[in-house]
Amino acid sequence: MPVLVMKFGGTSVADLARIRNAAEKVKREVERGYDVIVVVSAMSGKTNELVGWVEQTSPLFDAREYDAVVSSGENVTAGLMALTLQEMDVPARSWQGWQVPLKTSSAHSAARIEAIPRANIDQKFAEGMKVAVVAGFQGISSEGRITTLGRGGSDTTAVAFAAAFDAVRCDIYTDVDGVYTTDPRIEDKARKLDRIAFEEMLELASLGAKVLQTRSVELAMRYKVKLRVLSSFEDTDENSGTLVCDEEDIVEQNVVSGVAYSRDEAKMTLISVADRPGIAAAIFGPLAKAGVNVDMIVQNISEEGRTDMTFSCPVNQVARAREAMNKTKDAGEVNFRELVADTDVAKVSVVGIGMRSHAGVASTMFDALAAEGINIRVITTSEIKISVLIDRKYMELAVQALHDAFGLENAA
Amino acid sequence: MPVLVMKFGGTSVADLARIRNAAEKVKREVERGYDVIVVVSAMSGKTNELVGWVEQTSPLFDAREYDAVVSSGENVTAGLMALTLQEMDVPARSWQGWQVPLKTSSAHSAARIEAIPRANIDQKFAEGMKVAVVAGFQGISSEGRITTLGRGGSDTTAVAFAAAFDAVRCDIYTDVDGVYTTDPRIEDKARKLDRIAFEEMLELASLGAKVLQTRSVELAMRYKVKLRVLSSFEDTDENSGTLVCDEEDIVEQNVVSGVAYSRDEAKMTLISVADRPGIAAAIFGPLAKAGVNVDMIVQNISEEGRTDMTFSCPVNQVARAREAMNKTKDAGEVNFRELVADTDVAKVSVVGIGMRSHAGVASTMFDALAAEGINIRVITTSEIKISVLIDRKYMELAVQALHDAFGLENAA
Repeated sequence: MPVLVMKFGGTSVADLARIRNAAEKVKREVERGYDVIVVVSAMSGKTNELVGWVEQTSPLFDAREYDAVVSSGENVTAGLMALTLQEMDVPARSWQGWQVPLKTSSAHSAARIEAIPRANIDQKFAEGMKVAVVAGFQGISSEGRITTLGRGGSDTTAVAFAAAFDAVRCDIYTDVDGVYTTDPRIEDKARKLDRIAFEEMLELASLGAKVLQTRSVELAMRYKVKLRVLSSFEDTDENSGTLVCDEEDIVEQNVVSGVAYSRDEAKMTLISVADRPGIAAAIFGPLAKAGVNVDMIVQNISEEGRTDMTFSCPVNQVARAREAMNKTKDAGEVNFRELVADTDVAKVSVVGIGMRSHAGVASTMFDALAAEGINIRVITTSEIKISVLIDRKYMELAVQALHDAFGLENAA
Repeated sequence: MPVLVMKFGGTSVADLARIRNAAEKVKREVERGYDVIVVVSAMSGKTNELVGWVEQTSPLFDAREYDAVVSSGENVTAGLMALTLQEMDVPARSWQGWQVPLKTSSAHSAARIEAIPRANIDQKFAEGMKVAVVAGFQGISSEGRITTLGRGGSDTTAVAFAAAFDAVRCDIYTDVDGVYTTDPRIEDKARKLDRIAFEEMLELASLGAKVLQTRSVELAMRYKVKLRVLSSFEDTDENSGTLVCDEEDIVEQNVVSGVAYSRDEAKMTLISVADRPGIAAAIFGPLAKAGVNVDMIVQNISEEGRTDMTFSCPVNQVARAREAMNKTKDAGEVNFRELVADTDVAKVSVVGIGMRSHAGVASTMFDALAAEGINIRVITTSEIKISVLIDRKYMELAVQALHDAFGLENAA
């Protein structure tokens, strides 16, 4: 039997009625002749509740215990989904990460998938089970402890299963009906895209467009998994949603496909750092070791052997970054006068494969922002993306201005 | 190091503040020189929420999925307790049932503990871990699926760990400060007992006094585990609470130690059953197979080859019992006219080891009930207990009358 992977996010399984709605979509695919692997998230709100408890209990928590606690939400949904399918006469059973077993690294809270042995689930398919309901987001380390893949890790779980089981497609059901040129809550002229290239989706995901988790897109690109984003709350067919696919499969390419943003950024500046060879390594090595995801980096012009070093990281890693830098200072490895954190910033980015062959995208972007009087704090670029850090209060305005400037209301 | 087992029930870990309070009690025992195994229940209300979801999803649910879902509550508490202890500088880690592994039978939702290999936890104790926090109520079957021990199974988990690790004592922390002569909410003259015999506790537990789970008391009796019930919410020392112990360790024995009650009973009557040899087996065999816990049984006097058969079972098993009996009737194995269920009944019992050597307990009991005009529907007796089924509206009155009649306000 061909295998189809279907993934339902938190809002798609938020209560029993929605689990039933999702199960009906699963049943329809079983009737079309698929063996289905369903990957489920925790009921919406549950993971946040669990994370809150952990953080209140222990600000610098043991990540192994964090994982043991927060993974429980998915187990609940998996069992309820299996029961719902059984009630609809679809042979189904639930699988927790350690039961598959979905083997991961020991990097708790951000573990990487190492292997998904097919034997256990294949055997059940052979015995007549039609649906394997898998708890997303979790696995087991070689030490036998529960790991999690990081927030949004259920997308990654789904794609990894699609790759391991040679699935015909990996359908990601969510609360939006596809990938948009930007967030429709901010720009009402935003348009749904029928197709988007893996690389574009990757940039959008990493830039905070919360439709798909970055690593899931990376994985899909590497293993050529056909990935589709579609709505849990609408009737859907084979042409619904947005297909994330290879660049070659997109006939009409836009110069810019989308405008993304992220509110969860903080700008941190090390003031008056001794400017010497190796200083960047001395700063960003310890930050990496402390698990701080540094994004943008800017080094100011050096004066009298001292410079300011600015970087951005997720807001919730500011405390960790500060601790790591103070330790490094105390150890005499880096000398700086002060560490200033600005959490009132936002990142706005334009993304498009067409940039590769079109000049002038950056200047169009900067002109549009300047025309609105928006000051740019930090800039980074890649082959298919330009990002700027700006004051958070201008975020919506910047998104709208850029959507306009690149004519995205006419995108397809 | 001597091992102490401490168990905290749902109300004792209902929120983060209470988990912290419990952790402080654990830390105190570590400071006294114990290696501690802490068994935790789900935060109060959580298991009921999960059970509710399962029952709404699937009235005749797959018990394997039920177990996978409802066991998750304990996992959350175990992780949070380990984190709390770590915050107090007590080396601790959590263990889910499958990680121990706590091996059980495959009787899902009512599994029996088969083995608790010590190696994993002993190794961690040897490495300096002071507290193993174990998720109560759950285990793993030989098929690798999650099992649960039935409601209240965390008590059983605690006693089983105490037996497996030769613990000096198993302390059950709960929301009451010990075992009382009866429920103080019903009879304000109820007194706390300093000691109670295993067998009395066993009868009280099985009769619905919800202090300890029946199987935990059985296990403690069999393995000579010193079992203590005490309050999570008071300062406690080595003499707090009620010690459940061998009969010989109780100097001053009461004729009756306690009055217990249960609201969760239903009285079911098979009307006009063909009275023939083997009819009881034909009725109660299928009920047992359907998982109905039949408690009391009464057979009326036979007339013209037909009789009425009355039995009691937990209220929530009435549907299951009815289904089993209708099947048996359809299969032509038992012939009856009607099955009548009365769910407006309650069971009230007096329990005491002293009954063995004192005559007249039954007549004192029946006199006391008669004096209040309470009609007795069904009677059963054991060596140390007399139970009656009465109309539920008289339950409180019956408990008070019996507490008075046996002078329990003066018990110690």
